Amino acid sequence: MSQPLRLGIAGLGTVGVGVVRIIRKQAALIEARTGRPVTITAVSARSRDKDRGVTLSGYAWEDDPVALAKRDDVDVFVELMGGDEGPAKDATEAALASGKDVVTANKALLAIHGQALAEQAEAAGCLIRYEAAVAGGIPVIKALTESLAGNEITRVMGVMNGTCNYILTRMEETGNGYNSLFEEAEALGYLEADPNLDVGGIDAAHKLAILSSIAFGTKIDFDGIQLEGIERVAIEDIRAAADMGYKIKLLGVTQKTGRGLEQRMMPCLVPQTSPLGQLDGGTNMVVIEGDAVGQIVLRGAGAGEGPTASAVMADVCDIARGLRGPVFGQPAETLEQTTPASSQRPAPYYLRMALVDKPGALAKIATVLGEAGVSIYRMRQYEHSDTSAPVLIVTHKTSRNALVEALANMDKTGVLAGEPVALRIEEV
Amino acid sequence: MSQPLRLGIAGLGTVGVGVVRIIRKQAALIEARTGRPVTITAVSARSRDKDRGVTLSGYAWEDDPVALAKRDDVDVFVELMGGDEGPAKDATEAALASGKDVVTANKALLAIHGQALAEQAEAAGCLIRYEAAVAGGIPVIKALTESLAGNEITRVMGVMNGTCNYILTRMEETGNGYNSLFEEAEALGYLEADPNLDVGGIDAAHKLAILSSIAFGTKIDFDGIQLEGIERVAIEDIRAAADMGYKIKLLGVTQKTGRGLEQRMMPCLVPQTSPLGQLDGGTNMVVIEGDAVGQIVLRGAGAGEGPTASAVMADVCDIARGLRGPVFGQPAETLEQTTPASSQRPAPYYLRMALVDKPGALAKIATVLGEAGVSIYRMRQYEHSDTSAPVLIVTHKTSRNALVEALANMDKTGVLAGEPVALRIEEV
Repeated sequence: MSQPLRLGIAGLGTVGVGVVRIIRKQAALIEARTGRPVTITAVSARSRDKDRGVTLSGYAWEDDPVALAKRDDVDVFVELMGGDEGPAKDATEAALASGKDVVTANKALLAIHGQALAEQAEAAGCLIRYEAAVAGGIPVIKALTESLAGNEITRVMGVMNGTCNYILTRMEETGNGYNSLFEEAEALGYLEADPNLDVGGIDAAHKLAILSSIAFGTKIDFDGIQLEGIERVAIEDIRAAADMGYKIKLLGVTQKTGRGLEQRMMPCLVPQTSPLGQLDGGTNMVVIEGDAVGQIVLRGAGAGEGPTASAVMADVCDIARGLRGPVFGQPAETLEQTTPASSQRPAPYYLRMALVDKPGALAKIATVLGEAGVSIYRMRQYEHSDTSAPVLIVTHKTSRNALVEALANMDKTGVLAGEPVALRIEEV
Repeated sequence: MSQPLRLGIAGLGTVGVGVVRIIRKQAALIEARTGRPVTITAVSARSRDKDRGVTLSGYAWEDDPVALAKRDDVDVFVELMGGDEGPAKDATEAALASGKDVVTANKALLAIHGQALAEQAEAAGCLIRYEAAVAGGIPVIKALTESLAGNEITRVMGVMNGTCNYILTRMEETGNGYNSLFEEAEALGYLEADPNLDVGGIDAAHKLAILSSIAFGTKIDFDGIQLEGIERVAIEDIRAAADMGYKIKLLGVTQKTGRGLEQRMMPCLVPQTSPLGQLDGGTNMVVIEGDAVGQIVLRGAGAGEGPTASAVMADVCDIARGLRGPVFGQPAETLEQTTPASSQRPAPYYLRMALVDKPGALAKIATVLGEAGVSIYRMRQYEHSDTSAPVLIVTHKTSRNALVEALANMDKTGVLAGEPVALRIEEV
């Protein structure tokens, strides 16, 4: 019989407990599939006495995750604590320094320190595996690094924060504004301790930074992401977008262009009938485009005990089977240093504005757009009872610079009643 | 520098040419990702002189694929000829007998001879990899065998024949009947040389048989699939299903039950708003359900040069990286022999019938259904100008046996004007 693969698990929150449950429940299945038993040697968490609804008997306890990471009877250090500094980083480094493989669900750690950790791991001949760090149970890391290895990746897009997608979906369903749905999500326990990680787009941007590196063979550049959360999405825009056949999503997009790496995480419009547009509620979706494969869409639960633990176990089983390989799909030292793209690729834009109710107002707006080289694809003016007229415009594909110029010139016309809203329409 | 991985490619149709193109175009990328060059040593096809739009210079030519499979300078035999007997089988066996790994896109070969080939491969310490055999560019084999290795799989569903989905989608779009759209698909070159492989559901059933084996750890049992093609799908049912909020799909479903392995490939209804219901045209989709991960949906091109070659290259790159493992996710000798389920799991059903236009007809039908224990969820009777009245019924979940009994009793009432249509509604 083969030697067991022995895990040390640091962090016994939702995901850690999920991993313990799977290993207890599916021991026979996992051994049949990987050819060897997978066992837990030791665990670590903040509180030893908390009732987690799962027995930890038979596992050694370590108060200090660094000590856990160094144990001689641990082959794989499973890091499920989270956080980009502190114990998670210390223990991960200690595990690698002790020659152990690491499986982690920690997107923040990888997005900030991924390059250094990958270099350390590869110098030591160790693995870092992190399927659970991006989009929960969806096998997107494996799809990019392995299934599409023969493709030049052209674009990756993703709705990768279930809480944001839940809030946006519920805004459309209920007609209530952002604040009300934020409170609903909070009451349901959907928000991180620091809600800005969710609604500010940071959590999703961590994931995007990781995907960029694998997709394009570039060093992780979290700071290069153009980042905007969903806090400013107005219910009027949700409604107006729906009326024009679109949904608003917090969409991450990464694409390598001649002008650098373009990484965006911001609210934008996608067609209602596209797979991304049809993604309601807390589900995640990643869309990968490659030169050979065309477009692949992966959809599933992006969070929660079972899905995330399932992804952790995918990595554990790969290690049990003997799979080895570089952290980000090719050796860390060969990853290219990129610069953020100096400008965004042209796209259609959605504009919503209120015009003062006097003759010629709309003509002035149209003229300003035309002079900036922005051409109008569709325009709607709605009935109104007050002193300003709501107007929606969908432009043809245009550069961001031309749009910014047009918006500045609009401001000078004196026909705007309030600040216009401009959102990118991603062509999916 | 590492030794190159040397391929011998048998079959230079669409997919074979696609593989040659990727290897020529992406040599540097593939080497960066796998750590070694991937090269082609020799090729084989029916006609040496045909212009395939890609240069074969530098590759040895073999008229006989068996000779190609045995060459000392070939590490991996890439079988892209197709067919479950003849040269594909002979050459695959010869490659394994010579200790070579095999990559194949041949679903028929695996569905019929997979168990014997897997046993031969594993006894010889060789791999058979076949990501391209199921759903083209969609990484479903890897998702099942690797990404969901910690899950007990509960159900796998798939729309895995693009031609059938194209025909059904176009029937709905155009309102034209099956024969007309069959001709359209034929004119577009979407049909296999033997169209029954497509429209008879055989091709998709081959794929389902393979997925069943990996999902449930069972020996492949193609003959155990309940198989029905799309030839009998009437335009009236496409229309009526749409009216009730459903789409008709050629859907493969596999599920292990207490009564055996239930494998079905047949037209059935799915909700319009579900991912499967939203899948229009030639695209493929596989839905995998596991006890931990919940539901994962994978969507992409199921055929064509680029997508299928992309899947072949995924397997080639895995071999180049040193990945080893059993053919169907666990050793072939440990795969369980199952029997086909003796009865189908209960489901709601769609019934369409024409009733003779006389008082009490509908009451008789409702009575017969009730007596058989089939309860009605929704019923619609439509306006009519002739002597029979079209009636649609969606039942609550019921057993197939109860439905068959009800249909037999309906026949005896004398109120049916013609044969009723009954289609399963798959709960997705």
